[in-house]
Amino acid sequence: MTVRPGGTLGILGGGQLGRMLAMAAAQLGLRTHVYAPEADSPAFHVAGARTVAAYEDEPALIRFAEAVDAVTYEFENVPSATASILGAHTRLAPNAQALAVAQDRLVEKSFIAGLAIPVAPFAAVSGAGELADALDRIGRPAVLKTRRFGYDGKGQVTIRPETDPAGAWEAVAGAPSILEGFVPFEREVSVIAAPADSGAFAAYDLCANDHRSHILHSTRVPAGVASRTADEAVRVARAIAEALDYVGILAVEMFLLTGEEGERLVVNEIAPRVHNSGHWTLGGAVTSQFEQHVRAVCGWPLGDTRRLGRVEMRNLIGEDAEGWERILSEPGAQLHLYGKAEARAGRKMGHVTRILPEEP
Amino acid sequence: MTVRPGGTLGILGGGQLGRMLAMAAAQLGLRTHVYAPEADSPAFHVAGARTVAAYEDEPALIRFAEAVDAVTYEFENVPSATASILGAHTRLAPNAQALAVAQDRLVEKSFIAGLAIPVAPFAAVSGAGELADALDRIGRPAVLKTRRFGYDGKGQVTIRPETDPAGAWEAVAGAPSILEGFVPFEREVSVIAAPADSGAFAAYDLCANDHRSHILHSTRVPAGVASRTADEAVRVARAIAEALDYVGILAVEMFLLTGEEGERLVVNEIAPRVHNSGHWTLGGAVTSQFEQHVRAVCGWPLGDTRRLGRVEMRNLIGEDAEGWERILSEPGAQLHLYGKAEARAGRKMGHVTRILPEEP
Repeated sequence: MTVRPGGTLGILGGGQLGRMLAMAAAQLGLRTHVYAPEADSPAFHVAGARTVAAYEDEPALIRFAEAVDAVTYEFENVPSATASILGAHTRLAPNAQALAVAQDRLVEKSFIAGLAIPVAPFAAVSGAGELADALDRIGRPAVLKTRRFGYDGKGQVTIRPETDPAGAWEAVAGAPSILEGFVPFEREVSVIAAPADSGAFAAYDLCANDHRSHILHSTRVPAGVASRTADEAVRVARAIAEALDYVGILAVEMFLLTGEEGERLVVNEIAPRVHNSGHWTLGGAVTSQFEQHVRAVCGWPLGDTRRLGRVEMRNLIGEDAEGWERILSEPGAQLHLYGKAEARAGRKMGHVTRILPEEP
Repeated sequence: MTVRPGGTLGILGGGQLGRMLAMAAAQLGLRTHVYAPEADSPAFHVAGARTVAAYEDEPALIRFAEAVDAVTYEFENVPSATASILGAHTRLAPNAQALAVAQDRLVEKSFIAGLAIPVAPFAAVSGAGELADALDRIGRPAVLKTRRFGYDGKGQVTIRPETDPAGAWEAVAGAPSILEGFVPFEREVSVIAAPADSGAFAAYDLCANDHRSHILHSTRVPAGVASRTADEAVRVARAIAEALDYVGILAVEMFLLTGEEGERLVVNEIAPRVHNSGHWTLGGAVTSQFEQHVRAVCGWPLGDTRRLGRVEMRNLIGEDAEGWERILSEPGAQLHLYGKAEARAGRKMGHVTRILPEEP
C-alpha cells in the first residue's frame, strides 16, 4: 500500500483533468497537492495544497515530491527531467517509460507495431527529401505530424493528392515528424483501461468518439460494435499496458474499420492519463476513470466499471458553455464546468453527460 | 439569477456536508469559500478559499459575505445573529426562518402541527413540575429532549414506566425541553426535497432509514412503502417548504406507522440542509442532493432526481472506516471518506453507497 486514506496525492498539471482527479481523490479521503505553473489553474480551486512553479523548477519539484505520498499527472508532455526528479523522490505513476512512449509519435507507433498490434502505415520524416520518399511509400492522403507536442490537431497537416509537400513541411516548421497513412475508418473508438500494480486489470465498455475540427466532440457508450471487436480492443489495451508495466488509466484510441472480413481495429494513439473520452464514466459508471486512476496510483483495489445506463458525453467547447442553463433543465443531463475564466474558441470549458435508461 | 458559473458560493461549516457541497459547487464551475472555526476542517481540503474564524466574529462574517455571491450552511445551529449579519450582506439560503424553526424542537413541532401535519404528542417542559404534568398527559414511554442543540441522540433521555422523572430532568441539566410521546413506528423514512425560488419543487424517492444508538446507520431506496404513502410524504414536505418560503434541500424525517387502516406518517423532525439520509443520491441519482442544493441556492433550475438503481447507503462510523480496503474491492460499491484525521467512536468518517441493478 503506497498511500493510505489521509495521505496526500500530488497532481502535476492544473487543468480540468487535474481538477477532476483532485475531486476523486478527495472523495476517497485523500488530501491533494496540485503543482502547476499558472496561478489561477482550475485544479487549484479544489486542491488542499498548491504549488505555483515551472515544471523545470527543480527545488520546487523536490519540495513537492517530499510533501506528498505519490505523484501523478494530467498531461503526457511532462518533461523527462521533471519525471526523473519526481520519480527519484516519490512514487510516480504512470511511469516514466509510458511518458517517453506517449510523448513521441514515432516512438509510440514503433512500440505498438512492435507488439504486433495494427497501426497505420508510418515513416519518420526529418527533412523534405525524407517526406518525398515517405509519400512515395505510404501514398496519399497521408498526415504529417510533428513527433512531439501535438494535441487537438495542432502540429499536423493533411497531405492530399493536390497538396504541395513543401508547404506541408513548412507547416510543421521543420520539426522532426512522422508521416502516417490515411486509415479509411468507419468510426473512432477508445478503450479506457486501468492496469494496477497488483496485476489487476479493468476496462470500461468501449466507447465511440466523434471528433470535429480535430477536437473530441462527443462520446457514446455502448459503441455499437460486435462483442468480439470490443473484446479485441480490451486485449490490445491490455497488451500495451503490460508492455509498459503500466499503472493507472491508459486511454487507447483506435480506428474501427469495417469491410468484407468484418470489423477490424487499428490503434491511433495512446494517452498515459485520464482521457476526455472517459469523462462519461463520471456519473455514468459505478467508478469514474478519475477515481480508478487514483486507486491504481495509490496501489488500491480497482473499482467496478459497470455502466449505469446508456451514456452520451458531449464536450462544451468555447461558447458552447453559454448553454449551461438550458443543460441544467434537461432531464438525465449532468453538467460539468471546469471553472475556466475565459471561454476562448476551441477551449474545453466543460462537458455534459446524458445518462439514459438502458434499452431493453 | 443570483450567481453565475465562475461566481463564488460561501459555505458556513467545514464538516463532511460542507465538503460535499463544495465539490458539487466546483463540478458546476463555481468557486467556493468555506468558513469554519477549526483550522483543519474537512471542507477546507476542497475549497477555493478559506476563512478560519468563529461564527460570532462579525468583521470576519462581513468580509466573508462580501467575498461571495451567496451563502449557505451545512448545519442548522447557525446562531441567529450570524444568519442576520450574513443575510444583510448577501443572499442567504435557506432563509433565517427555516433556521429558527429547525433550531428549537418546540417551535418546530408547533410549526408543523400548525400546518395540520401529524406529529408525536408533545409538551413544553421548563421545570420538574411541568415534566410531571406533561407525563400525566402524554403517558409513558416518552422522550425528554432539550429544545436546542441536540443531534445524534445527544440531549435526550427516554422516560420508561420505571424511570424516575427527577433523574431525567437532571439528565437534560435543567435546559428548556420538550416531552414527546412515543410513536410505535414500524420504520423511519425521510423525504429529501428541493424547493426553489422559482416555485419549482423536486423530491427524491422516499428512503427508509435505520438508526442505531441514535445515529443513522443505513438508508435504502426504494423504501418499500405504498405509492400513496410515498406521495403523501412528498406532499407533507412540500407543505412545510412552502410555509417556510424555503429554498434548498429540506430533509423531513418521518415515522411510518402501520395499522388496520394502512400506512400512516408522523413527522419527527426537519433539517434545513443536505442530510445524511440523502447521501445515497451522490452516485445513486442523476443529480445529487449536494448539487441540487447548490442549484437551488444559486437560483438555478433543479436537476433530475431519477434513481440509477436500487441504492443502499451505509455510514462508516468510527472504526468502520478501517474496512475501506475491503469496500474498495466490492462490486457496485462507492466509497466516500471525509478526510477526518481522527476516528473517534460515534464519529461519521465516511459512507459507502451500493448501487444495485433495479429489480425486474
